[in-house]
Amino acid sequence: MHNTIDMSVAQKVKIAIVGASGYSGEELVRLLLGHPHAELTAVTSRQYAGQTLAAIFPRFAGNAVADSLQFTEPNVEALAEAAEVVFLALPHGVAAEFAEPLLAAGAKVIDLSADFRLNDASVYEEFYGNAHPAPALLEQSVYGMPELHRDAIRNAKLIASPGCYPTSILLPTVPLLRTGIIKSTGIIANSLSGVSGAGRNLSAGFMYTECNESARPYGIPKHRHLSEIEQELSLAADAQVTVQFSPHLIPINRGILTTLYLAPTKKFETEAEETALAEQITECLATAYADEPFVRLLPPDSLPDTKNVAHTNYLDLAWRLDRRTGRLIMTSALDNLVKGASGQAVQSLNLLCKFDETTGLS
Amino acid sequence: MHNTIDMSVAQKVKIAIVGASGYSGEELVRLLLGHPHAELTAVTSRQYAGQTLAAIFPRFAGNAVADSLQFTEPNVEALAEAAEVVFLALPHGVAAEFAEPLLAAGAKVIDLSADFRLNDASVYEEFYGNAHPAPALLEQSVYGMPELHRDAIRNAKLIASPGCYPTSILLPTVPLLRTGIIKSTGIIANSLSGVSGAGRNLSAGFMYTECNESARPYGIPKHRHLSEIEQELSLAADAQVTVQFSPHLIPINRGILTTLYLAPTKKFETEAEETALAEQITECLATAYADEPFVRLLPPDSLPDTKNVAHTNYLDLAWRLDRRTGRLIMTSALDNLVKGASGQAVQSLNLLCKFDETTGLS
Amino acid sequence: MHNTIDMSVAQKVKIAIVGASGYSGEELVRLLLGHPHAELTAVTSRQYAGQTLAAIFPRFAGNAVADSLQFTEPNVEALAEAAEVVFLALPHGVAAEFAEPLLAAGAKVIDLSADFRLNDASVYEEFYGNAHPAPALLEQSVYGMPELHRDAIRNAKLIASPGCYPTSILLPTVPLLRTGIIKSTGIIANSLSGVSGAGRNLSAGFMYTECNESARPYGIPKHRHLSEIEQELSLAADAQVTVQFSPHLIPINRGILTTLYLAPTKKFETEAEETALAEQITECLATAYADEPFVRLLPPDSLPDTKNVAHTNYLDLAWRLDRRTGRLIMTSALDNLVKGASGQAVQSLNLLCKFDETTGLS
Amino acid sequence: MHNTIDMSVAQKVKIAIVGASGYSGEELVRLLLGHPHAELTAVTSRQYAGQTLAAIFPRFAGNAVADSLQFTEPNVEALAEAAEVVFLALPHGVAAEFAEPLLAAGAKVIDLSADFRLNDASVYEEFYGNAHPAPALLEQSVYGMPELHRDAIRNAKLIASPGCYPTSILLPTVPLLRTGIIKSTGIIANSLSGVSGAGRNLSAGFMYTECNESARPYGIPKHRHLSEIEQELSLAADAQVTVQFSPHLIPINRGILTTLYLAPTKKFETEAEETALAEQITECLATAYADEPFVRLLPPDSLPDTKNVAHTNYLDLAWRLDRRTGRLIMTSALDNLVKGASGQAVQSLNLLCKFDETTGLS
Repeated sequence: MHNTIDMSVAQKVKIAIVGASGYSGEELVRLLLGHPHAELTAVTSRQYAGQTLAAIFPRFAGNAVADSLQFTEPNVEALAEAAEVVFLALPHGVAAEFAEPLLAAGAKVIDLSADFRLNDASVYEEFYGNAHPAPALLEQSVYGMPELHRDAIRNAKLIASPGCYPTSILLPTVPLLRTGIIKSTGIIANSLSGVSGAGRNLSAGFMYTECNESARPYGIPKHRHLSEIEQELSLAADAQVTVQFSPHLIPINRGILTTLYLAPTKKFETEAEETALAEQITECLATAYADEPFVRLLPPDSLPDTKNVAHTNYLDLAWRLDRRTGRLIMTSALDNLVKGASGQAVQSLNLLCKFDETTGLS
Repeated sequence: MHNTIDMSVAQKVKIAIVGASGYSGEELVRLLLGHPHAELTAVTSRQYAGQTLAAIFPRFAGNAVADSLQFTEPNVEALAEAAEVVFLALPHGVAAEFAEPLLAAGAKVIDLSADFRLNDASVYEEFYGNAHPAPALLEQSVYGMPELHRDAIRNAKLIASPGCYPTSILLPTVPLLRTGIIKSTGIIANSLSGVSGAGRNLSAGFMYTECNESARPYGIPKHRHLSEIEQELSLAADAQVTVQFSPHLIPINRGILTTLYLAPTKKFETEAEETALAEQITECLATAYADEPFVRLLPPDSLPDTKNVAHTNYLDLAWRLDRRTGRLIMTSALDNLVKGASGQAVQSLNLLCKFDETTGLS
Repeated sequence: MHNTIDMSVAQKVKIAIVGASGYSGEELVRLLLGHPHAELTAVTSRQYAGQTLAAIFPRFAGNAVADSLQFTEPNVEALAEAAEVVFLALPHGVAAEFAEPLLAAGAKVIDLSADFRLNDASVYEEFYGNAHPAPALLEQSVYGMPELHRDAIRNAKLIASPGCYPTSILLPTVPLLRTGIIKSTGIIANSLSGVSGAGRNLSAGFMYTECNESARPYGIPKHRHLSEIEQELSLAADAQVTVQFSPHLIPINRGILTTLYLAPTKKFETEAEETALAEQITECLATAYADEPFVRLLPPDSLPDTKNVAHTNYLDLAWRLDRRTGRLIMTSALDNLVKGASGQAVQSLNLLCKFDETTGLS
Repeated sequence: MHNTIDMSVAQKVKIAIVGASGYSGEELVRLLLGHPHAELTAVTSRQYAGQTLAAIFPRFAGNAVADSLQFTEPNVEALAEAAEVVFLALPHGVAAEFAEPLLAAGAKVIDLSADFRLNDASVYEEFYGNAHPAPALLEQSVYGMPELHRDAIRNAKLIASPGCYPTSILLPTVPLLRTGIIKSTGIIANSLSGVSGAGRNLSAGFMYTECNESARPYGIPKHRHLSEIEQELSLAADAQVTVQFSPHLIPINRGILTTLYLAPTKKFETEAEETALAEQITECLATAYADEPFVRLLPPDSLPDTKNVAHTNYLDLAWRLDRRTGRLIMTSALDNLVKGASGQAVQSLNLLCKFDETTGLS
């Protein structure tokens, strides 16, 4: 069968990256250059075609592949020839035109854009403002969050790797929604993002002098990522979930810090009730994540800090009950380019190829 | 009457600062050196006694007062002799021991600490962990937020200048609570603060390498500032208000950005209802703030950014209705050392001395 | 005479800024909005024509002029009508087309670009790569550094305000060259600049993520600013001076820090010789700068720090003799947008209009 | 022989770190946790004794060793028992008291402090202000810069790992001095350092608010690192070399950028002379470094940037000839905690243990 990937470790899986010159693409390059079972065979960039990886990303110089592999113009046939798995690190809306022919040619596709994350083309249209370019593919695409959809990822042909904000919101809340510990209503997510989250995007608002010494909200109240957040939360709650989500831009390169305001289904007005609820939450999260390699449940007196997850594939998670208000506060931190993008995509690659899930990620 | 301040502009009011070596103290020095009707006659600091302002704060060198005025050991008699108005820029818990004798000696006192902000000594004890050192003074102290208590400030002897977080939370919400546009329940305030908010505090967590490239929550769920926030909101709502407040530390020097999640009392499920509510909010805020010199209501398509208020006494304010969730989102930005501390205190000084309220602040 | 400026303080001088939307332009706006004897009557920007200053620069909102004055398309006749003094804050090479007709129409011109800084059109061509567009104007233009050319500025019609790097290099060295304390050969200037020095320039290298956590040299070994540096040093030394100049970009918004490596003409191999030389340098600098309002000679044990001059018109200056190497090390700090650009230009305005030189600058 | 290290790869070499809680220590932990042939068996810290690595450095949580290995009080016997190689990451002046007994007990010692870097105890005393505590050890210690002393490192018992500034200065200049291409006189090194270079040092000057938006020189003109710089340059030049060295602090976490001003021995006043000299330099550096795994000679049109070497063991190097001044400008960038400290120390470990020199470093 031509689209089965040979996972014997002796032979490396051949990988291409389409759109390798953005920040997610660059981070994918970094991870795949260090991946023991992956061989980067093609990277595309219209802008940099003909130049080596090392010429465009001087930090990779000295690596034999980076010193020799040249960017090419994107060409579906050549990509399908060169690679068994193709990563798409393209702007939203462009991925479909590559995904379709690549899949037809037998390649597996891991897409980092939002194009295939939604199950419902009408939701896509509501949030992205145009009709979905390939609605048929939405049915076969798998939302690439291993902690939620590991088995489906293993057998997928088209993986839609999640967004950075959604990852920071879904991992804390899904287990609590699934077990009914929190209500599916009234969920608020307040997120802070480093500037690389905006992509390598020549825009006045992302110049150094505009971001340094600046903190600001944006995209409120209806950011596009809400669509995939609400889709996955609704699946977990088995009910339609509507979320309040407020992203903010802060002057760090990498990192997302999300603070979640949640309502437990049980009241906890006495110390005993609080203790009982705390134990339930502890057990729920431990059950969900104790064996997950990339979710770290912080010790009780710790809180997340983006600097502890920078350049790693970890999501750090802590929570507090507030008896004064009856709320559960959860906070999570991750690196938007790793667990929030390219690292999580490599996790999917590992699942797809039956490698150890942590290969190349620790 | 010996404790009336002569406000004739020809004669400057004499000012002392106790604890002038912290960040709030330094900012007070900056503002008062430039204040046309104030004369800085004494600054105290145990650590720097005998050294000039300019020696300790090289940025002020070249100013005649900064070049000559020396820090002294704090001495109540000398301070009462030297100054008509004494600012206390001391750590929480220390201000009382200066305020009492200074008031007794006829000085007016503007305290930047939390010591006199609460009306109720038992709330102080709950949040600060020890009995209030001078509960009798709580009765005469005035909460120094001119937009809320202007007349009382004009006639006060002891002004408790508000905290930085509370200012960013109260100014957006009080008018809406007073008019009943929002509910007094379910208020959530998510705040981001620059590192100067921690004071000039030699602590590992505030070293450059620990704060740079870092974003983190702290002090959740029961930060001390909640006590004054809830006091003032309860006054505005004429009901006991309980607030969810989550402060975060981000790598900027100055600035607080607060995002508030609020519930309008009226539903707004149709476009017409949303429009009506929006008009009500617009009018309420315009009524409250159109003539306030230091509150800027941003244009409808703008959102606050700390860089626009840095080094100014402005609070910038914007809001959005979210029909999907039924919530009102408000966001505010201010400079924690100016409107959040020393600028607001100078605003009180101007009121106290019958100067134009903006003197020395624009 | 129609081009004499009425300097009676009762009547404000009318000012226009051409190209007010860059960083220098924005800083000029800030300074002139606060200048008691200046009235901003016109600001131009092709991009923002029709919008108010406050709409484009939200930090100025609340100021009556900023709230009402609109950017216009640049039009020489309208400018000459509206203003007695016109500031040009345009990219290099564009200023000449405005300067000529404005001067002809009787306006005084203060140009912040490099267009009129050089006395010799051939040097301009060597360093800027094209023939000078208005060589005749070079003869009447005055290099707008008050500490060096105060009298000429007072009587100038066209003032070429100096570059940021040159200011940080010339003020330390000129007095020592004039008095022969240092050799005119072997001068090395190693400079660090904040990112605003690059202007509001949409270029990949100045995006937040490219500048944050980055330090890099650029433009070595022959940066354009060398031409004006060498011109002024040669005048001071009365000999042709060639300078080694290395600019570097560091992640701060504002500030230039320059470290100079200089050779005293006298040897100082003994402690006595060192002491004698140190006294000579001390006296030379005190003579030159003790009465200068914007040059601060730091105390012997201090060194400059950009944070002490940020948002001010000061240049801070310190020096060390190194007997091991026989060199004099000088270091200076300034704010590239203030003393390095707009503040120094306002200093020239004050001289031109016979205002106190520090008006609007402290 | 008890002090021979068994280098069979199957068996890991046992490693201890004394003083593992500083920044260099933390970086060593990071590198050794990922080193395939090293087993971290002991880490000491008086402050954190009894706590795990992961508890103190949350970024390492999830690693099995970090989750279980506890800091202990430093104890020479226990260390010699636990480890074949002991890294000392202690403040200057403290290492000797550990090095002596550890060596006596048969351990190999890699010291990251300055204690054993100098060949001459009197130079130590001149620069460090006190008599050397163990002058006898200076004779057997090897300066741990593999590019200069590879063979000696392989056979050493005590390795003095170089300082961060010296590494950035020596690697560019030593080959040119050895071949006589540059003069041994007049060398100037202007260096910029990130704040982690100051160590985990609770000092007011290194607080976030004091370093952010700040650039400043310090320690001029006679910084302690000059002693080892001049020692190694003198060895290379076979003549006594005196260097001008100016360190500066800039607001980045990691990185050193050094700009060197050098005088070629040959004049290059014509284009032909410049070309010939450039070829000579190119060849000299290629001969020295083409096969070095951690020195990257940048392409002719590139310049170093600290962000390209952050978190790597690379030193990036570029140079320019300036025919106007007759000088050679060299610039280098490295990560002060990796190639400037712990990475270089691991390079020495690899040499000592006959591992591939890049093991655990790429």
